[in-house]
Amino acid sequence: MSKYTYLKELVYEANMEIPKEELAIVTFGNVSGVDRDQGVVAIKPSGIPYSKLTVQDIVIVDLDNRVVEGKMRPSSDTKTHTLLYKNFPSIGGVCHTHSTYAVAWAQAIMPIPNLGTTHADHLTPSVPVTEVMSDEMIRRDYELETGNQILDVFTKKGLSPEEVEMVLVACHGPFTWGKDPGKAVYNSIVLEEIAKMAFLTLQINPSAQAIKQSLVDKHYFRKHGKDAYYGQSC
Amino acid sequence: MSKYTYLKELVYEANMEIPKEELAIVTFGNVSGVDRDQGVVAIKPSGIPYSKLTVQDIVIVDLDNRVVEGKMRPSSDTKTHTLLYKNFPSIGGVCHTHSTYAVAWAQAIMPIPNLGTTHADHLTPSVPVTEVMSDEMIRRDYELETGNQILDVFTKKGLSPEEVEMVLVACHGPFTWGKDPGKAVYNSIVLEEIAKMAFLTLQINPSAQAIKQSLVDKHYFRKHGKDAYYGQSC
Amino acid sequence: MSKYTYLKELVYEANMEIPKEELAIVTFGNVSGVDRDQGVVAIKPSGIPYSKLTVQDIVIVDLDNRVVEGKMRPSSDTKTHTLLYKNFPSIGGVCHTHSTYAVAWAQAIMPIPNLGTTHADHLTPSVPVTEVMSDEMIRRDYELETGNQILDVFTKKGLSPEEVEMVLVACHGPFTWGKDPGKAVYNSIVLEEIAKMAFLTLQINPSAQAIKQSLVDKHYFRKHGKDAYYGQSC
Amino acid sequence: MSKYTYLKELVYEANMEIPKEELAIVTFGNVSGVDRDQGVVAIKPSGIPYSKLTVQDIVIVDLDNRVVEGKMRPSSDTKTHTLLYKNFPSIGGVCHTHSTYAVAWAQAIMPIPNLGTTHADHLTPSVPVTEVMSDEMIRRDYELETGNQILDVFTKKGLSPEEVEMVLVACHGPFTWGKDPGKAVYNSIVLEEIAKMAFLTLQINPSAQAIKQSLVDKHYFRKHGKDAYYGQSC
Repeated sequence: MSKYTYLKELVYEANMEIPKEELAIVTFGNVSGVDRDQGVVAIKPSGIPYSKLTVQDIVIVDLDNRVVEGKMRPSSDTKTHTLLYKNFPSIGGVCHTHSTYAVAWAQAIMPIPNLGTTHADHLTPSVPVTEVMSDEMIRRDYELETGNQILDVFTKKGLSPEEVEMVLVACHGPFTWGKDPGKAVYNSIVLEEIAKMAFLTLQINPSAQAIKQSLVDKHYFRKHGKDAYYGQSC
Repeated sequence: MSKYTYLKELVYEANMEIPKEELAIVTFGNVSGVDRDQGVVAIKPSGIPYSKLTVQDIVIVDLDNRVVEGKMRPSSDTKTHTLLYKNFPSIGGVCHTHSTYAVAWAQAIMPIPNLGTTHADHLTPSVPVTEVMSDEMIRRDYELETGNQILDVFTKKGLSPEEVEMVLVACHGPFTWGKDPGKAVYNSIVLEEIAKMAFLTLQINPSAQAIKQSLVDKHYFRKHGKDAYYGQSC
Repeated sequence: MSKYTYLKELVYEANMEIPKEELAIVTFGNVSGVDRDQGVVAIKPSGIPYSKLTVQDIVIVDLDNRVVEGKMRPSSDTKTHTLLYKNFPSIGGVCHTHSTYAVAWAQAIMPIPNLGTTHADHLTPSVPVTEVMSDEMIRRDYELETGNQILDVFTKKGLSPEEVEMVLVACHGPFTWGKDPGKAVYNSIVLEEIAKMAFLTLQINPSAQAIKQSLVDKHYFRKHGKDAYYGQSC
Repeated sequence: MSKYTYLKELVYEANMEIPKEELAIVTFGNVSGVDRDQGVVAIKPSGIPYSKLTVQDIVIVDLDNRVVEGKMRPSSDTKTHTLLYKNFPSIGGVCHTHSTYAVAWAQAIMPIPNLGTTHADHLTPSVPVTEVMSDEMIRRDYELETGNQILDVFTKKGLSPEEVEMVLVACHGPFTWGKDPGKAVYNSIVLEEIAKMAFLTLQINPSAQAIKQSLVDKHYFRKHGKDAYYGQSC
């Protein structure tokens, strides 16, 4: 039995949430998980439909994208995942989907404004959107540069990947992450819902405004940080 | 066996309607029920996913929000629920969801106009929306003040909680109630549907108007009050 | 065994399509069927949730709305159904739903234009919408007058109930009919779909026009009438 | 046992994806497959609901639309399918649906712009829309002319049926194709999703633009052609 079996099972289960939660159709989307002690990432193989995916199909790569275990080619988005693991040292899982409403905001190249407490329960600022990639970057090493675009928007806006666990890649779609693969998928579920809510809100009232800072802080800090009182303490 | 078992079962069943009816994703939403003789409220514990919720997890609190029975922390919205029970003496259950269309109207900070008989079958006026909370209220005792905002809009608009069993909390989402926990959830189902219908109506015809009073009255009073002839008499 | 058992079973099955096809939530909607030889109509009882409905619950009334068999009160919309049976001699079933998109067009008080072949496969003109009822009619005999409003729009527009098997009652929702209860429900399924398609079409292109008459005729007459070649001949 | 059994089973399975993937209601839609060696096409019979469809019901016709095997009348759209097989020699399956968002774009008579990578993963240009048919063509041989309209838009725009495996027939709905019936249905699933994403994108940002050519090419050519690295090589 492989020493990566535990990680592969975890990543398999998280990937299977994508069709179950309707976060992508056919083969789209992928989830990975990292084992930082062993220096490996487990990720969905490229182009395999969820209905045929097995635990054994999950590919193990190192942080330089070399296959360590597995007969299949890893997700074409692997370089984006590994770049996030290298630069966001606290995260344990990454999820990429083509969920409909999040993709629509990404295609509109607009950040999702914080219009209510469902959003504020999870992050305080807008969901950021990257810049459109330059032709040069696209031709160079596209999936690596996708990761660089994400790092870039976090740097420029001074965002923390511990607080903001989601981003929209312009003209493409969402990436989310978290302490483990399950939390990364959870954030994709939440992102799709707040993307839909924000769309509807602005259809109903095109001049709806981001909520006030005191309400943002209240909701965020009742769920996060040392004074949190949402959820169970243990 | 606890003397609250019956109430816990009732509240557990009502909570499980939330995922079944797609009124909220992940852990969002909560339903409670009151036993006015025993002076207790049964409510969902905070932050527990519905897929893991059991009858035993339901928390019993008194009307001053002190835990009477249960190992878990009650919903972070408990103070809103108990304030409603104290001020609306006829109600037996309260339901809070983050259902998508109702949240969109709440985030748009707009009441849902009475555009048709689906709405009029359940209440005669618009679904009210609270005012945005002041910074001071948010910082003071947020969940209690959420309840106060609800009471406030009912007082200002002269609404009866027996007739209008639903409200939108601005920038947050819906609360509904009823004679028991099941009826409270029923009202959340209805609210989400009329929120979606009103959204679509105004997209199709932005100048659609609230229906005439005679039609409102006809539909409301054929279902409610002494001359009702909708449903079964026993 | 009742001599109406066959009709009750047929009407029960047709009613159960309403929740299955998501044409209405909770207790909304109702289907009836007529036996013209016996002079009776079988209809859903008022206010019973579909999950609890049984064949035995179906109520038999005569064409003057008197209960002939059954312990429950018939649907509050019974008078609308019987008026349609009396005036449209070729129909065998009537279906009333609160399906979301059809209701939105009814609340917008706008006919659904014939924007494509999905519509034209079923009827050639717009789906008609009744006028808003006068206060006097609402107070007089509301459900009977609902039927009269339907007859009225058919007369004014010169529509045939054999060709146009659907109508929107202003501020209320759709009624559909057909040769039997199953066909009446089928028409409600189709109406909801063309209502959604028309909504989306006009959102994408607000100046989209009704399709040309030659295409309307082609699609309608390949499915209907003596030269039809759609479907199986036997 | 028929020498067409294998093809009939393949086409049956592909047709059953239509209701499963919610690409059409009731009897709408149809999938066919061609066996070029035997010179036959297997296609859904006309007007049969999916819930009643069996492998035996699939009709075998030759490329001149004459029934070779089967008791039922073939789909009324058969002439459109066979014309595509005759003119697009590399394709093995054709799928026609009335999926909601794709129909809405067809009714709006607007091509679906390439707004993001979900689209670019599958084709580089907009999804083309045919011209509205002339009255004369409609009266002549409607289903054949539907095929001619498709060929026409491909010729006029210089599109390749190997690269662009989908089209919108104006005022009607989508046709898709592929190397086999399963791939044809896959393309209908993808088309419906990109139709919905494009609709939402333009609702959020009415001035959203087609993505830049370098990004189109990157996504298309990482999945297609000799340098493809998406999916598994074997």
